Amino acid sequence: MKKKLSTEPYKGVRDFYPEDQFIQNYIFDVWRAVVESFGYEEYNASILEPTELYASKTNEEIVNEQTYTFTDRGDRSVTLRPEMTPTVARMVAQKYRDLSFPLRWYSIANFFRYERPQRGRLREHWQLNADIFGVRAIDADVEIIRIAQEIMRTFGATEKDFVVKINNRGALLAHLIKKGMSQVEAEQELSRMDKGMSKMSDTPKAKEIDTLLSLLKDKGIKNVKYAPDLVRGFSYYTGIVFEVFDTDEKNTRSLFGGGRYDGLGEKFNTIKESFPAIGFGMGDVRIRDFLEVHKLLPEYSSLTDLYLCVVDQNYKDIAESLADYLRKEGLNVSLDMSEKKIGEQVKTASRKKVPFVVCVGKEEHDSKMFTIKELKTGKETKLKKNEITAFLTKMANAVS
Amino acid sequence: MKKKLSTEPYKGVRDFYPEDQFIQNYIFDVWRAVVESFGYEEYNASILEPTELYASKTNEEIVNEQTYTFTDRGDRSVTLRPEMTPTVARMVAQKYRDLSFPLRWYSIANFFRYERPQRGRLREHWQLNADIFGVRAIDADVEIIRIAQEIMRTFGATEKDFVVKINNRGALLAHLIKKGMSQVEAEQELSRMDKGMSKMSDTPKAKEIDTLLSLLKDKGIKNVKYAPDLVRGFSYYTGIVFEVFDTDEKNTRSLFGGGRYDGLGEKFNTIKESFPAIGFGMGDVRIRDFLEVHKLLPEYSSLTDLYLCVVDQNYKDIAESLADYLRKEGLNVSLDMSEKKIGEQVKTASRKKVPFVVCVGKEEHDSKMFTIKELKTGKETKLKKNEITAFLTKMANAVS
Repeated sequence: MKKKLSTEPYKGVRDFYPEDQFIQNYIFDVWRAVVESFGYEEYNASILEPTELYASKTNEEIVNEQTYTFTDRGDRSVTLRPEMTPTVARMVAQKYRDLSFPLRWYSIANFFRYERPQRGRLREHWQLNADIFGVRAIDADVEIIRIAQEIMRTFGATEKDFVVKINNRGALLAHLIKKGMSQVEAEQELSRMDKGMSKMSDTPKAKEIDTLLSLLKDKGIKNVKYAPDLVRGFSYYTGIVFEVFDTDEKNTRSLFGGGRYDGLGEKFNTIKESFPAIGFGMGDVRIRDFLEVHKLLPEYSSLTDLYLCVVDQNYKDIAESLADYLRKEGLNVSLDMSEKKIGEQVKTASRKKVPFVVCVGKEEHDSKMFTIKELKTGKETKLKKNEITAFLTKMANAVS
Repeated sequence: MKKKLSTEPYKGVRDFYPEDQFIQNYIFDVWRAVVESFGYEEYNASILEPTELYASKTNEEIVNEQTYTFTDRGDRSVTLRPEMTPTVARMVAQKYRDLSFPLRWYSIANFFRYERPQRGRLREHWQLNADIFGVRAIDADVEIIRIAQEIMRTFGATEKDFVVKINNRGALLAHLIKKGMSQVEAEQELSRMDKGMSKMSDTPKAKEIDTLLSLLKDKGIKNVKYAPDLVRGFSYYTGIVFEVFDTDEKNTRSLFGGGRYDGLGEKFNTIKESFPAIGFGMGDVRIRDFLEVHKLLPEYSSLTDLYLCVVDQNYKDIAESLADYLRKEGLNVSLDMSEKKIGEQVKTASRKKVPFVVCVGKEEHDSKMFTIKELKTGKETKLKKNEITAFLTKMANAVS
């Protein structure tokens, strides 16, 4: 006999069972609603990119030690994208002449990094990326930080729960170069700072930081702080950088962040002069942990409105035609095909967290009346076929 | 100077610009709406799977010649999933004792195959997978084919546009074995039939086919045909198999298909006796081609309701506070930060296909009235701030 297979997924990635996917969809829906309210348009790309896309201007550690890179059957080197910024810059560069700026784009996509799996760090995560292209003015920096803030607020977090730390990476770099370092040395020093291996004794506070803080304050955003040591991992950042932190000191890692990368476009062969760009990325793993710790995750509920149980297989047709009738009216209806005892079927509905059941048999066939049972309360209501949708809609509105 | 980078994506995969993603989302929304109306719950998994998952019971050609398989930095062999069925069977097997059957599950996910890119065949595609687990009765077969049909209908296709061909793979296999072939020989013969390299002279028509055809006819579905030569590529199918074809004979490839695979669960170490399973997969590439040829694709429209243009930068604040006010009322509002001439800003809105613009300057500040312009008709309406949302909602409902 053959050796049987393990049911485990690959190390460091997740299976999303319906209860997990429900949370995932909740997070994605919040992301989507907020960025779309600011006029962002959705794009996407393949997770597989030519490896050369990551060859320069990105964090070297990530490229050299942490990517999933391999050679395809046609001898091309390909990489599972570790982040979205190089991809989105590539796409903007590709259609640069046809696109209308300012451009507000977002995507929700997955990314891979070969890391040692631990809390808040997995090998695959999903991330929202939102970016503005074509705006050099600080208005874009303000909007990006406001959106990050608005997403946290929409998740139910208050200003007490998190803080936005900002700095200007470009100013730090210029400062080091002024002190005599070469561009390469200055970049390396910032990389050491990012890893906490070095500190700058005299950090310059760019005037832009004050302007940004004051503009954000005007919009009612006060939980923003200047953080002279904040650098961010990616060397493509040229101006403002920011990171969002949990105010709970037990959770010291940044939740997410972003910044301005006005120089990235230049590396593509379609672009002569670079274009301004600023954006941020927000991953699902750390946000989910944050929402869990702060008790902000919603309780699971089924998208199925009604579960039909079949009391007597001779009347299965009645259940099927009722299901079809209600689906046409816009309800999501699941029909039990197990041929199990009626009590078992109701239990199945309950375990699936479907809120209402109707049992169908001879009685329902003869009387043309259906008893709809709310599983949470046990309350029963007798209704005609054409009254069910209105009843369930009313009940759903009462809950939400 | 460094050599500049190409902006091309990896060969055989696609970039989704907002206009492309719009179509993609349309397809996904139709898939989602139909399967959820039948009570299917969404799951997902990582695109990266242990290679051993594909080592048996699957189409050998796909595993050996067409997968993206590589070794990770920890010396594990991993594969970018070429299809969902092994993954979903793995997940069901993993939590077999905790799940409530019958189980109706769906996912919308991406898949990779190393193929020569051509029309209808790319290296990456997105696919809907919908499956029922735990039902041996033919009711499940009926439901799966009805859902496939309902999706096509929801896309706007009529019964004249497509035909569902059905066969019973299990019966073919039993027939060959009865004629003296071993299991392995019979599987190989079916694989040759699938490639059109062999034909069976005397095909058995399982009784189940007639039952299925008659049950589907009862539900008003008549474009279903018995196809004695239909085999499907995957050897895990144990019963009914089906494929959907365009009736236009210029488009000979199947659009999508599925079948029953009652034996797949058994290969996992958590499962003693196998569980019944049936499902189908529907890819975006061929469906999109089909919808395009049949002129069933929707026209692009922006999700942004309103574009705000700034006439005079001194009154930018008025535009910003108007934007925030309308966002709170639920509108999607984009604000032009380009500081370009007003005509250019309006042109940008038009190119982005945002349906309405408001230009904000001294006049709007003084009068507290805003002129809302419909870009398609040029029609202008003067409104107070608190009248805009109702106006746009009315206009949107009038269109749809």
